Amino acid sequence: MPSHRRQLHLNLFLMGVGHHEAAWRHPRTDPANLSSLAHFQRLAATAEAAAFDSVFLADGVEGPDPARANAWIGHFEPFTLLSALAVGTERIGLIGTVSTGFTEPYNLARQFASLDHLSGGRAGWNIVTSAGDRAARNFNRSANQEHAVRYQRATEYLEVVRALWDSWEDDALLLDRASGRLTDPAKLHEINHSGEHFQVLGPLNIPRGPQGHPLLVQAGSSADGRGFAAANAEAVFTAQQTLEEGQEFYGDLKRRAAALGRDPEGIVVLPGIVPVLGSTEAEAKALDQELDELINPARAIGTLSVLLGVDLSRHPLDAPLPPLPPLDAINGAKSRFTLVRDLAERDGLTLRQLVGRLGGGRGHQVLAGTPEQVADHIEQWFTRGAADGFNIMPPILPEGLELFAEHVVPMLRERGLFRHEYTGRTLREHYGLDRPANRYTSVNQ
Amino acid sequence: MPSHRRQLHLNLFLMGVGHHEAAWRHPRTDPANLSSLAHFQRLAATAEAAAFDSVFLADGVEGPDPARANAWIGHFEPFTLLSALAVGTERIGLIGTVSTGFTEPYNLARQFASLDHLSGGRAGWNIVTSAGDRAARNFNRSANQEHAVRYQRATEYLEVVRALWDSWEDDALLLDRASGRLTDPAKLHEINHSGEHFQVLGPLNIPRGPQGHPLLVQAGSSADGRGFAAANAEAVFTAQQTLEEGQEFYGDLKRRAAALGRDPEGIVVLPGIVPVLGSTEAEAKALDQELDELINPARAIGTLSVLLGVDLSRHPLDAPLPPLPPLDAINGAKSRFTLVRDLAERDGLTLRQLVGRLGGGRGHQVLAGTPEQVADHIEQWFTRGAADGFNIMPPILPEGLELFAEHVVPMLRERGLFRHEYTGRTLREHYGLDRPANRYTSVNQ
Repeated sequence: MPSHRRQLHLNLFLMGVGHHEAAWRHPRTDPANLSSLAHFQRLAATAEAAAFDSVFLADGVEGPDPARANAWIGHFEPFTLLSALAVGTERIGLIGTVSTGFTEPYNLARQFASLDHLSGGRAGWNIVTSAGDRAARNFNRSANQEHAVRYQRATEYLEVVRALWDSWEDDALLLDRASGRLTDPAKLHEINHSGEHFQVLGPLNIPRGPQGHPLLVQAGSSADGRGFAAANAEAVFTAQQTLEEGQEFYGDLKRRAAALGRDPEGIVVLPGIVPVLGSTEAEAKALDQELDELINPARAIGTLSVLLGVDLSRHPLDAPLPPLPPLDAINGAKSRFTLVRDLAERDGLTLRQLVGRLGGGRGHQVLAGTPEQVADHIEQWFTRGAADGFNIMPPILPEGLELFAEHVVPMLRERGLFRHEYTGRTLREHYGLDRPANRYTSVNQ
Repeated sequence: MPSHRRQLHLNLFLMGVGHHEAAWRHPRTDPANLSSLAHFQRLAATAEAAAFDSVFLADGVEGPDPARANAWIGHFEPFTLLSALAVGTERIGLIGTVSTGFTEPYNLARQFASLDHLSGGRAGWNIVTSAGDRAARNFNRSANQEHAVRYQRATEYLEVVRALWDSWEDDALLLDRASGRLTDPAKLHEINHSGEHFQVLGPLNIPRGPQGHPLLVQAGSSADGRGFAAANAEAVFTAQQTLEEGQEFYGDLKRRAAALGRDPEGIVVLPGIVPVLGSTEAEAKALDQELDELINPARAIGTLSVLLGVDLSRHPLDAPLPPLPPLDAINGAKSRFTLVRDLAERDGLTLRQLVGRLGGGRGHQVLAGTPEQVADHIEQWFTRGAADGFNIMPPILPEGLELFAEHVVPMLRERGLFRHEYTGRTLREHYGLDRPANRYTSVNQ
């Protein structure tokens, strides 16, 4: 293969003992692994041995609602877990989800810079704006901000964070013993940001990291989310159910980026897929069905009620959905609302059927089949303009990852789609993305 | 020795390549270690091999001031570094300094709980309220809050954090596969905190940690600080220059705790000491002098100007200090201001002499001598009511720690003062402190 051939990217989506809602009930998982560092270390090591680009950690800042059965599962906080995983791995990227809604930009900029240093340039930030009033109520607010306001705040937030990452020029740290000059004050910069949401002096209290800026990832697919991604993101995580929808999203995002003067290749599009693997298609479908049958309907219906903005707890399981609120009334995950609504309409699903469909994928595409069928799907989306790679969301862990690494990855390599080993050291190098220039550094130096 | 004999506690103060201001310029340190994870891993491993209670990480949220020569050295952020150090160590405690001024209590409670889980019960929080307007200006404020307001806020902050740590009862996580019950909603609690500074719903999004609450450490020694410590702290880190002052502080704090109904043994007092070790006293004093001569006076005077609230940059080096502002006018580290002012007055120091004295200790006692002299000092303070243990602040690292572990620790063991090996697993167990009861758990269950 010529080395410049376009290469596929693979992230491992880290979600407890598996992405399926009922993974923890399956006899081939161990629910105690939900709070076991060793479990996550094993997942990261397996993904690194398969030369995955990154592990990708979802997150939220909302505790379980005691009044609902959809109790959210407690898990490790991203900066702590990813820092622990930086030790014992050497190449794999470490992407953490953190909201712009509930953290100070100075703290976030610093924690990501620190992770980038600790890991030798492997940090990535999945930027979310947070949804849900219960999260807001943990942070001095009575309700979450409006969707559009959240994106405005996120845009200013990101501007602050980027300026802080540039506030030390790359050669600001002198460590000159002879002269006693620890830093070069001319290369340290107050950012003096004063905007609608933030006033931040700077500089940051940690030197610029190995990647300059940690990789910027974004995961919202609404109109606001696409605009934000086109302007700012270097990788986009998305849920797309059909090839056509995937192509539409992919093309739209690349065009939006190009219209803003960006290189479309500088924004990597990564749909999520749930590979339910079996040595035959029947075996895979049996596992899928086995998992769906383990779903606790009350817990799943509670989750769905929050997502769709209607109380479904007394709705008949075998009836179609009741009328849903208009999109404007949804102040949460707008693109996920649309996706679920359209899925139920398109396939004429009852509540019970919808719960089953969502339990595995949570809106992402579930592929129950043989390794070859999964590899075919990946190749098709990759070569037909719907994906630059995928977030792999195994239904049960670690088994689902180990099967993917053992059976699917070799096929992708035989087809010339995926690397045999790492060629770079940093996450940016894995994705083929440049190290950002520092805004304060004169090009004539 | 009977096993119930009172035992000494030792923490390693993690400060770059050494606690001395000029450590980075000394030929036996490597300044590149300032941002080397391997360096900190080596320090933690050495301290753990010597059965130290903890590593203790100082912190601040203020970048270097480009307009001053006292450029603060960039370093790792506490949660990220301590999480990385949790991997590869098994017993040593991990204490991180985090201010109540600039983080949301929900985020802090969660990050410490996560660190406690990741480390198997080794997390400790050194509670500071932050000093300095430059820090405040990184967080949407034009100036830092008043000293007393900061402690009021800290008290409420701590109340929120403790309630969040209790918001999952210890047996709230059921993981009951058969019934599909992940959690027991009756054992998950909204905290519904609504106070002057914070409104927080809860519960936290991570189960209660191995220690129940991470260990609570406090480091301010002003009147406000002592009151806060007596009410809340389980370990107190303090700077005391003489045995008499140490005894006064120790006795005062234990009495204050008792007056609040606490067991005085439930609050461990730990002065900092800087052991400058040599095989002879002359050799130790030569190293001390060698380090003092490496101090960049402009950089040190900048630091001192901030601390004392006067511009000393044009003050003659060989004159005594100019008149200082009254204590009331200091809105920063009040107890450190008093200590430095009194030290300069007591010993009639010139500016140059004061800079030398502070360069090594930063207000803590510098002991330049043989291992036996250092062991004698430790024994004296420990047996004469001035300390339950010490924060060991080696002037240069890793050398100063390695000498201490090799030469001083064995003497402390021979004298029956210090453990030969760990007897507990958690940081609370090392300090001999109880695991806190959960406020929501009925005692009659």
